[in-house]
Amino acid sequence: MAATRDESLAGVQTLSVYELNERDRGSPVFLPFGAQKQADGTHRNGLGDLVPFSNKLYDGSLQTRLGITAGLCTLISHNDEKKGDRYEALYSFYFGDYGHISVQGAYITYEDTYLAITGGSGIFAGCYGQVKLQQIVFPFKLFYTFYLQGIKALPEALLKPPVAPSISATPSAAAKSLQPDSVAPNFTN
Amino acid sequence: MAATRDESLAGVQTLSVYELNERDRGSPVFLPFGAQKQADGTHRNGLGDLVPFSNKLYDGSLQTRLGITAGLCTLISHNDEKKGDRYEALYSFYFGDYGHISVQGAYITYEDTYLAITGGSGIFAGCYGQVKLQQIVFPFKLFYTFYLQGIKALPEALLKPPVAPSISATPSAAAKSLQPDSVAPNFTN
Amino acid sequence: MAATRDESLAGVQTLSVYELNERDRGSPVFLPFGAQKQADGTHRNGLGDLVPFSNKLYDGSLQTRLGITAGLCTLISHNDEKKGDRYEALYSFYFGDYGHISVQGAYITYEDTYLAITGGSGIFAGCYGQVKLQQIVFPFKLFYTFYLQGIKALPEALLKPPVAPSISATPSAAAKSLQPDSVAPNFTN
Repeated sequence: MAATRDESLAGVQTLSVYELNERDRGSPVFLPFGAQKQADGTHRNGLGDLVPFSNKLYDGSLQTRLGITAGLCTLISHNDEKKGDRYEALYSFYFGDYGHISVQGAYITYEDTYLAITGGSGIFAGCYGQVKLQQIVFPFKLFYTFYLQGIKALPEALLKPPVAPSISATPSAAAKSLQPDSVAPNFTN
Repeated sequence: MAATRDESLAGVQTLSVYELNERDRGSPVFLPFGAQKQADGTHRNGLGDLVPFSNKLYDGSLQTRLGITAGLCTLISHNDEKKGDRYEALYSFYFGDYGHISVQGAYITYEDTYLAITGGSGIFAGCYGQVKLQQIVFPFKLFYTFYLQGIKALPEALLKPPVAPSISATPSAAAKSLQPDSVAPNFTN
Repeated sequence: MAATRDESLAGVQTLSVYELNERDRGSPVFLPFGAQKQADGTHRNGLGDLVPFSNKLYDGSLQTRLGITAGLCTLISHNDEKKGDRYEALYSFYFGDYGHISVQGAYITYEDTYLAITGGSGIFAGCYGQVKLQQIVFPFKLFYTFYLQGIKALPEALLKPPVAPSISATPSAAAKSLQPDSVAPNFTN
């Protein structure tokens, strides 16, 4: 059965989302298994520390609650000079009935990174490409730009013009309070 | 070197398998690192709990032992109402000499999910798409339907008509006892 | 927006690298959570043990320090006969400004394996395929052959003829001491 290129697939599509820790999901859970110590005996971040996490996901315009993120970060190294850490991150973004996108790559607390898009489900099944992670407020507010390839044109509902990343960017009251017009269908929670 | 579409690649191919915990691989190992407690002091499932696991893998017709699954689940949230949990799962399916398929996505103990196919090796090298997970008996019997893209036509040996998922679905005696005609070549163990 | 096959994409490209543990990154961190015991009470490797790790990455010719590897291994089973272990591995290879490649699959301490290439970033964004892992000296020296698909032609700087894997294979003094001509641009550290 010869393969034919699906003409309905779009080229590179840009999708923006906000990941927000609203401090009501018990996240993150910092597991200090690296067991490194500072001179004063307190924990020093280092290889071996594990951080399971799950935050809320909003569309880029911050008008729609989409779902959640969920995953595991492995601390790789601490950078004294930058006062921050490099993690290896494996997690997914859940968009309710739309499906999900999975990623793998670096999360560095003091600089932007690009992670790999490893795949997805639903409207994102078969997707590939890379995603840019921009941390706005560590570790509570992050902005992502997905450069998605391999899937059909995304629904307009996910493509509202994004709010430019800033410390004050905040979801609409309607999205935060889960009003019916401001959530993805069966938004993930 | 211009790319030319490999005409020998098939379109979407469906592959069914059963994942069975026969309680002889020491799996799963439940690590209660989330450290949440019930009112009575016993552990309450929550974010932070980690579950490494490895089960046996059979073909969909339950006549061939293929290999194993192997991976790590991160517990994301407990659902009191549904009496179950959402996990973020990262694992692989090993098919002996055929190769392997890797996945990433949600495992929810009280409902079906779709995970991302992140890639594979051997005959599955370069594969992508999504896989449907159906839990038949928690957590001992699961049925999967892979919707594989990007690879050549699968061998007939993997495409025997699947046994419909049911509580009583069970491997053939020959497959369970690893008879030579009832195992994948160098089945993973 | 119909998709058109990018004529600038190459076919399968082979990329070789060395992963070396030079014992100066605090790696690996062996977390014996499987809690299995030998008859004498010492730890016995088994399902549940977790191993975060991060090593140095050199090009195949061992003349250029590229960056690091970073990830997490989950121990799946111990093999008494082979005196070794099967792990399920999730990690990435960081190539400085070039980007990164992520992988998922089996790491077996006593034999070669093929892992899935799940994706990447930078020049590796959108990549797929499989990678062969050859362990030269457990667990300090590994040689990888990536069979990369879906990306443009790799830069010549990454394609110097590889040093054949052997116990004595060692980075050039210039690469080891991070001389400017012997590191990838902004090599990852």
